Amino acid sequence: MRYLLLASHGNLAEGMLDSLEMITGHHDNIFVISAYKNDESDFKSQLKSVLAQISISDELIIITDIFGGSVNNESLKIMNDKRVHLIAGLNLALVIELVTRMNSNIFTDELIESSLKNAKDTMIYCNLISQKKDKRRGFLREEE
Amino acid sequence: MRYLLLASHGNLAEGMLDSLEMITGHHDNIFVISAYKNDESDFKSQLKSVLAQISISDELIIITDIFGGSVNNESLKIMNDKRVHLIAGLNLALVIELVTRMNSNIFTDELIESSLKNAKDTMIYCNLISQKKDKRRGFLREEE
Repeated sequence: MRYLLLASHGNLAEGMLDSLEMITGHHDNIFVISAYKNDESDFKSQLKSVLAQISISDELIIITDIFGGSVNNESLKIMNDKRVHLIAGLNLALVIELVTRMNSNIFTDELIESSLKNAKDTMIYCNLISQKKDKRRGFLREEE
Repeated sequence: MRYLLLASHGNLAEGMLDSLEMITGHHDNIFVISAYKNDESDFKSQLKSVLAQISISDELIIITDIFGGSVNNESLKIMNDKRVHLIAGLNLALVIELVTRMNSNIFTDELIESSLKNAKDTMIYCNLISQKKDKRRGFLREEE
């Protein structure tokens, strides 16, 4: 079975799950780690606990908040676990697409690569769509 | 002055602010709307309230959770307000870059376009980096 783990510094991962479930309903195959909120919320041990909850034939797609951050760096250290797929860059469109295609008949790497591409395609500066004839540049900031 | 508004269905926007501030510290120029949590949390009126709090010479960069969602669609309706810049696709790298360059001497459209590009560049399927010699495809899902 495929599982998803949303992981972040602070509450982003929990907030993401809340918004995801508001749109797509509840899912049983999603774990969440909102790390470093206090001294007890050690990310490494929470990640280990998630891995212990899935079987040897399962897969875990981890999506972390940001590339280069501690959560992603810690996750990189468990890449020798063959069950793990790691994505940096939490985004709602990405998570919705992964969740809704979780049981589809597609290789996991293809699922991830196409979901990532589609998510990036929907990250849009909307002024460029709606204001082609009225391009607003905004002001150059002056030092305050 | 430039302001940022993080807006989402449910708690994503609040969670994003929590993670952002854990990494970059507190900022006075950020608004948050976590919409549709109950009957009283009408997005349209909350958006109107944010616009009323900034001056005619300010700018508001709205970042919504997902393109095509209600929050983004409602925001598109206020694009006739010349102060508004609208981005679809909340992402931590994007928000960090916007916040840290908020007072830089750059046109707002350039700030947004370069921040969006950089954010997309850091959304990465990490297995492709670390496992070039050990490409894991994952299983084709069978119907359960």
